Amino acid sequence: MDGGGGGLKPMDSEQLREYGHQMVDFVADYYKNIENYPVLSQVEPGYLVKLLPDAAPNQPESLQRVLDDVQSKILPGVTHWQSPNFYAYYPANSSVAGFLGEILSAGINMVGFSWITSPAATELEMIVLDWLGKLLKLPQEFLSSGHGGGVIQGSASEAVLVVLLAARDKTLRMVGKSALGKLVVYGSDQTHSALQKACQIAGIHPENCRLLKTDSSTDYALSPEIVSEAISHDISIGLIPFFLCGTVGTTSSATVDPLYSLAKIAKSNGMWFHVDAAYAGSACICPEYRKYLDGVEEADSFNMNAHKWFLTNFDCSALWVKDRNALIQSLSTNPEFLKNKASQANLVVDYKDWQIPLGRRFRSLKLWMVLRLYGVENLQNYLRNHIELARYFQVCVGQDPRFEIVAPRKFSLVCFRLLPPVDDNETRGSNKLNQDLLEAVNSTGRVFITHTALSGMYTLRLVVGAPLTERRHIDAAWKVLQDEAFTLLCSPLQENGNLPKSPPPIGFFGNGFKAEPLPQK
Amino acid sequence: MDGGGGGLKPMDSEQLREYGHQMVDFVADYYKNIENYPVLSQVEPGYLVKLLPDAAPNQPESLQRVLDDVQSKILPGVTHWQSPNFYAYYPANSSVAGFLGEILSAGINMVGFSWITSPAATELEMIVLDWLGKLLKLPQEFLSSGHGGGVIQGSASEAVLVVLLAARDKTLRMVGKSALGKLVVYGSDQTHSALQKACQIAGIHPENCRLLKTDSSTDYALSPEIVSEAISHDISIGLIPFFLCGTVGTTSSATVDPLYSLAKIAKSNGMWFHVDAAYAGSACICPEYRKYLDGVEEADSFNMNAHKWFLTNFDCSALWVKDRNALIQSLSTNPEFLKNKASQANLVVDYKDWQIPLGRRFRSLKLWMVLRLYGVENLQNYLRNHIELARYFQVCVGQDPRFEIVAPRKFSLVCFRLLPPVDDNETRGSNKLNQDLLEAVNSTGRVFITHTALSGMYTLRLVVGAPLTERRHIDAAWKVLQDEAFTLLCSPLQENGNLPKSPPPIGFFGNGFKAEPLPQK
Repeated sequence: MDGGGGGLKPMDSEQLREYGHQMVDFVADYYKNIENYPVLSQVEPGYLVKLLPDAAPNQPESLQRVLDDVQSKILPGVTHWQSPNFYAYYPANSSVAGFLGEILSAGINMVGFSWITSPAATELEMIVLDWLGKLLKLPQEFLSSGHGGGVIQGSASEAVLVVLLAARDKTLRMVGKSALGKLVVYGSDQTHSALQKACQIAGIHPENCRLLKTDSSTDYALSPEIVSEAISHDISIGLIPFFLCGTVGTTSSATVDPLYSLAKIAKSNGMWFHVDAAYAGSACICPEYRKYLDGVEEADSFNMNAHKWFLTNFDCSALWVKDRNALIQSLSTNPEFLKNKASQANLVVDYKDWQIPLGRRFRSLKLWMVLRLYGVENLQNYLRNHIELARYFQVCVGQDPRFEIVAPRKFSLVCFRLLPPVDDNETRGSNKLNQDLLEAVNSTGRVFITHTALSGMYTLRLVVGAPLTERRHIDAAWKVLQDEAFTLLCSPLQENGNLPKSPPPIGFFGNGFKAEPLPQK
Repeated sequence: MDGGGGGLKPMDSEQLREYGHQMVDFVADYYKNIENYPVLSQVEPGYLVKLLPDAAPNQPESLQRVLDDVQSKILPGVTHWQSPNFYAYYPANSSVAGFLGEILSAGINMVGFSWITSPAATELEMIVLDWLGKLLKLPQEFLSSGHGGGVIQGSASEAVLVVLLAARDKTLRMVGKSALGKLVVYGSDQTHSALQKACQIAGIHPENCRLLKTDSSTDYALSPEIVSEAISHDISIGLIPFFLCGTVGTTSSATVDPLYSLAKIAKSNGMWFHVDAAYAGSACICPEYRKYLDGVEEADSFNMNAHKWFLTNFDCSALWVKDRNALIQSLSTNPEFLKNKASQANLVVDYKDWQIPLGRRFRSLKLWMVLRLYGVENLQNYLRNHIELARYFQVCVGQDPRFEIVAPRKFSLVCFRLLPPVDDNETRGSNKLNQDLLEAVNSTGRVFITHTALSGMYTLRLVVGAPLTERRHIDAAWKVLQDEAFTLLCSPLQENGNLPKSPPPIGFFGNGFKAEPLPQK
């Protein structure tokens, strides 16, 4: 018995050292070869159950055997978010610094629900979110020195949920809790689906979640006039507007809602104004992009995902609020078994009361390491480089008259589509064509892009954001897109053997499109 | 620009290898020396802000400098959950296997919200939760082959929240959504506060969350009669009972609610029955403890935290449901930008619809590694060893007439208290005495225990569960408790110089307490 663990030594420091080195080598080799994997996994549903036993082993297996299985059975089923050829969704950056933070956090493996359960975890989180808040030039009220502060959530979904709950309960404390059915939330049809999900969870009636229509006239940004009208109408029929969500960098097209005007509307109606900058927030540490946050000083809460485009491994979603008590009033519980002197004396922050779960990991370590090991200037240049690569891709697309850019590019997302042949320009045909192109390029395993719908148009999205992506990868991605487009557009002819199999030179389908000059390599 | 990242190489595989090895060594050394740290951090609130700069650096810093800061500034503020002297709350096991799983997961760093975003992540999670479900002898309906299945949540709080939402919406679909204010939830005053928090979030009226009273007559287990009465009364006044939570291993005293009877009541009233076995569920992989899960076959959902006492680093909370569609109906969203062939064809599980957040880590890797690198027999013995150590501690306490055991021990939690001197047996004095004892032992830095209240009695909790804990640590912990108890009980006399400073032999305060024999070392 004195050997601990009944013979098993699950926490032997020398075994941890030896096996830990092996696993680090495995990961380093993975990165070394990452371009050789199909970026989008090409397995069929249910592939893995055929490869693994149907029960856990009774006796231990060797690490080598497990690593062999990772290589031969798990990696083929992985979609490689860290591949330089990953352009889908929004990125989820890994980095050496973020990876080191994860190792350290896993090693310490503490559960920081209350300050006392590891004071350093709470305090480092407050400090690092103040650092990041200052980089983003957030107003003082969002920093920890006043009534507000920052907190790391698992995701932007949790961030919008907790502030929605805070706003809901603040309103219900004024109007009485029986008014829940009258509460109304506003966003746009471009707002992330997390808002709708948060409403479902919080018991907001689905028909009281207003996802107001946008269109190309505002580049898919939320129109203040439409918000004002909706609010006035709702008030006139006895409903209670209480929450407005603005976005800086929507998921579909990275558009930016007019924060100032929205904040003003929210304020004059006593509503909570939340700003979701999950993706584009990172870019706003560069002075030239900070303008997109103008108006955030009037918001009640602000969120950006350091785990997207800020080199901090998933998960690390940074949320700031001006009134931390609003969060705490909604989310606190105070069972006897968690009481302790520091909490009872109100001397400390207990982050359990700022989030949905009780337990929480030491996630600030990785953000701290990213900021320290890279430094602000490198981080700014890292983001600028991706934006420049996206601009380069946009120019490539713009020079090929077979394609069109569908929405203006502000950051590192390019929205584009393949134009249908001249005699087939109705939406359904066009949408089918682009859906086929998406399937075709993703099936090559050489690039992974995703899509969205803008004004009913099936639109391809290419986001530059993986740490390993270089200009040569953009060139290769564009070549795959051109090749597959050629195949799709020409396939009936090809079958008749009337056209060459290689793609045409740019301008083959020339129709007078005015091209931007290509940037110098 | 072609260097990637604008000069920064945040994902260079050789730097990852070199720095990764350094960090693994740091963690291995930490474990080697972990007994030398005060287990409960002894820093004062606000200590860290005085030690760190108030802004992120512009230029990169070296890894060595960051590690020096971790050593000198962060670790003093860490409460060492992996210390063999950690007996607080419930454990949060780290292990070599779990740690390796975290490294691999951080290295792959994918975001597995939909099957397509990494098929292996979804499929391994289904497979491994089937493995664990079989180990726990859960009924077939909880496995992935039928209408149910398992899913990894971040915490038991999220687990109870998502099933509460599923149950809420299932009920509202039948009775109409305007009935939200009439829905009633049942648990006991021993049910984890997560239930109350879930109710707050879900918009259940606080007064409709019934935390029914328990007492020592049932060893603090929920009485089926009291539940039945409460439900009948609520129905009679027009309310709608819809959710009942039973617990296997409550937080205060690790009591076990009578699952069979509770399930029967829930079923006959059309209610959802959830079983929370966050802590004690692990022990139930041993045949001799499986009896505590009897009745789970009648439950709608079941939860245990592999990150507590199952060697899987935090976070990894395993939840099984019989009707996965109930979850999906509450938690799904279907925005255009996430649509893909596999999901649209309904061929796959998309775990985003089983949880609160959208994004999710590859957490099944660590549970898979734990099961494979240790094997079932070792894991069973690991748990038995802790239970045996707890029994040993209980015997120690039971042999010292100054102390009393406050609740029966079933697993590895011992609830006890120091008895006040004979002439001072009123509750307040007794509570103050034990609160002082807790403060005193925790201030030594040699042991960290926590407390609870049972029938108003301030009760000390000692949980054996850290992977490094051996019998010598239990002996040491008991010695600290005895020493501090002696000091507390004798301090007025000591001040007068009337008593020796060393603790008395066991039996000094002898009052005829019948002791269990001490187990052989």
